[in-house]
Amino acid sequence: MEKGNSIYQGKAKELYLTDQPEVLWVEYLDQATALNGVKKDKVVGKGQMNNQITSKIFEILADQGIESHFIEKISNTEQLIKAVGIVPLEVVVRNFAAGSFSKRLNVEEGVKLPFPIVEFYYKDDALDDPFINDMHVKVLDIASDEEVKEIKELALKVNEELKKLFASVNIKLIDFKIEVGRDAQGNILLADEISPDTCRLWDMDTNDHLDKDIYRRDLGDLIPVYEEVLNRLNTL
Amino acid sequence: MEKGNSIYQGKAKELYLTDQPEVLWVEYLDQATALNGVKKDKVVGKGQMNNQITSKIFEILADQGIESHFIEKISNTEQLIKAVGIVPLEVVVRNFAAGSFSKRLNVEEGVKLPFPIVEFYYKDDALDDPFINDMHVKVLDIASDEEVKEIKELALKVNEELKKLFASVNIKLIDFKIEVGRDAQGNILLADEISPDTCRLWDMDTNDHLDKDIYRRDLGDLIPVYEEVLNRLNTL
Repeated sequence: MEKGNSIYQGKAKELYLTDQPEVLWVEYLDQATALNGVKKDKVVGKGQMNNQITSKIFEILADQGIESHFIEKISNTEQLIKAVGIVPLEVVVRNFAAGSFSKRLNVEEGVKLPFPIVEFYYKDDALDDPFINDMHVKVLDIASDEEVKEIKELALKVNEELKKLFASVNIKLIDFKIEVGRDAQGNILLADEISPDTCRLWDMDTNDHLDKDIYRRDLGDLIPVYEEVLNRLNTL
Repeated sequence: MEKGNSIYQGKAKELYLTDQPEVLWVEYLDQATALNGVKKDKVVGKGQMNNQITSKIFEILADQGIESHFIEKISNTEQLIKAVGIVPLEVVVRNFAAGSFSKRLNVEEGVKLPFPIVEFYYKDDALDDPFINDMHVKVLDIASDEEVKEIKELALKVNEELKKLFASVNIKLIDFKIEVGRDAQGNILLADEISPDTCRLWDMDTNDHLDKDIYRRDLGDLIPVYEEVLNRLNTL
């Protein structure tokens, strides 16, 4: 497999072509951002943490029958993925109140929701990723009704597997964000990453933050926390 | 029918008990507010305009088989309504982009949507009526899944009738907000008011605003505009 030209530089990853049109090469960067990129820092070691954590999680999900764009980890900071057309949605699943949910609806952080909920945000930096509903998804031509249903079901299925996986290493899954893409056949596939950048993870005993809130809220050094998550997952 | 004690003073209406427990007495006030009450003014004549417009519209909707809480108009500024338990939702239907939809999603005001969409806002002044999705409605225990479905269907049915009604007096229905309540039997009933306070109405030929945007955006005197809407409806 040959690495080709860079085709996209995201906030925490860079994407390259390969000599196979259906395969992309991802490099996880040593970069942390928050507040839609307003806060941005170089964080040495973050790229390899998130690449290893995401690779591990996508492998476990595949074992549980949830296919993703992930093909294989090829170095500590790199992986190969299937080329998919990303659906411009941030799909958020919440098990406990936190973050914007808590703020907008005045529910204390950490309160358990009676059932998991799914939220859609329109992935558009210029609009600051606005929260939208199912009808907006359709009216903005982001996805069809059938796809919306499928994406929600996938998000809730991923949630069930992630809850179990994290519980087995003493971590409470508060909420998380996934993205999905369409493969060449138009099938919806789990994409992007699953890491402490995209999940809120609390230690089950102490409720300590084991995720990017450390960085967002200036609670300390991010690397030891991400390393803790990786070490726990590596016991699986 | 005897007017009893005031039980609720809203932004534009005051509610009184009557000697019948299932009937309330509404007085439409000469008051205009915007921006969740931050902007507020006395506007002489507004109460009687909105009472007459709402009464007329609820009568026409009833003729089309859409029942509401409306019983009868008893003076220029007053009507009797069925006592219902208001569901704390602002149910918005949009036919054309405008207002917050245009701002949040960067779609020019006046652009026709491919189909009408429904949005829910959680009626809570302290939270500034946040936009929510169907799962929030359930998780916040505002309404059941079945009620959500019923409320959406009702909103879209009201939309079809209002579009026809306004088109017949040369007015384009851009968007509107309704509220619903539960009667003693738990049935969902159209409630609140339908007026230029709660609808965006544009003249079909000139696109002139015939609604509260006149006040929100300081475009001129509100009374002649509301009077124009009432006069057109009175030709029906």
